[in-house]
Amino acid sequence: VPAPIDFYFDFASPYGYFASHKIDVLAAKHGREVAWRPYLIGAALKVTGQPPLPQIPLKREYANRDTPRSARFHGVPYRHPTNFPIGAVAPTRAFYWLNAKDPKRAKELARALYAAYFTEDIDISNPENTVAVAARIGLAADEVRAAINDQAVKDLTRAEVDKAVAIGAFGSPYIVVDGEPFWGIDRFDQIDRWLATGGF
Amino acid sequence: VPAPIDFYFDFASPYGYFASHKIDVLAAKHGREVAWRPYLIGAALKVTGQPPLPQIPLKREYANRDTPRSARFHGVPYRHPTNFPIGAVAPTRAFYWLNAKDPKRAKELARALYAAYFTEDIDISNPENTVAVAARIGLAADEVRAAINDQAVKDLTRAEVDKAVAIGAFGSPYIVVDGEPFWGIDRFDQIDRWLATGGF
Repeated sequence: VPAPIDFYFDFASPYGYFASHKIDVLAAKHGREVAWRPYLIGAALKVTGQPPLPQIPLKREYANRDTPRSARFHGVPYRHPTNFPIGAVAPTRAFYWLNAKDPKRAKELARALYAAYFTEDIDISNPENTVAVAARIGLAADEVRAAINDQAVKDLTRAEVDKAVAIGAFGSPYIVVDGEPFWGIDRFDQIDRWLATGGF
Repeated sequence: VPAPIDFYFDFASPYGYFASHKIDVLAAKHGREVAWRPYLIGAALKVTGQPPLPQIPLKREYANRDTPRSARFHGVPYRHPTNFPIGAVAPTRAFYWLNAKDPKRAKELARALYAAYFTEDIDISNPENTVAVAARIGLAADEVRAAINDQAVKDLTRAEVDKAVAIGAFGSPYIVVDGEPFWGIDRFDQIDRWLATGGF
């Protein structure tokens, strides 16, 4: 069995959200699994020295058009959040807490968190909102709340974020297929060919 | 007759070069013309406050993989230039000098310049190399040399570069279809649908 495809993303990233709708379908087409690996782009921006996208003139105005247009192009429901971007520490911790016990369920939580932020304008950077979204899929609110504040979960999250930046992730989605990195929802065509041919 | 599609690019940009192989074919499929508009990304970087890509950690290492891989993916011959990136003032001036007289021939010159830089490792930032490439397609070397140093051509080039940044161009390729901007060779799928449907 080949290793899973690594899907690095930030819960604050619209393009990561679009990718979350498509990556497992693409992988399954080639008989592959996907390991979801949320991280915090902010940690990568410290290495690249870049400001967040909404602070970059020209690029920011372009993104304001490209993001909703890309949602329509990919057929993914999208509502631009009022508070954007956010620091996604709480949802990332909740994810890794659950992922250690049940990766499949953690993926379900990630989908619910993304949908809450990008279709319902729920600010998941607020830990209580992350707890409420987790409760929707049947997780116990007090357990999730405790997990977000648990030092071991904080350490695990920090370690996963550091690992992501260490392997070179700087954007979202950042997808690694058998050692080959692909940045962006717009590299899915290349990923598809890479999976079909084993490299080109 | 609809207005032409505006194709903004930098002669130093690999992705602009890839796009130069595909944009007229895509436009023709929809019965459209393309106006080629070289500019200098450096002028946009002054507005965005960004360093050039090869100076950005993580992103730079990624680009070193993505660029040759994208060339293979798009079936475009590519050899990474020894001197990269370059300030493409000389080829941009030569282009606008010729474009004022004969846009079709200017496109031919642009293709020759791109091929020289990205397949033969000819440093077209050196005016004499731009002159030599122009001579290959039958232009008089002394006329091209004079044009590159002509104040009116310098002013025209500067005006075109300023205009590109003023409409929002910050990358290469940056393509505007009936007022809608698309950044990157990886937005050709969206451009295709936009041209087919008149917007989505």
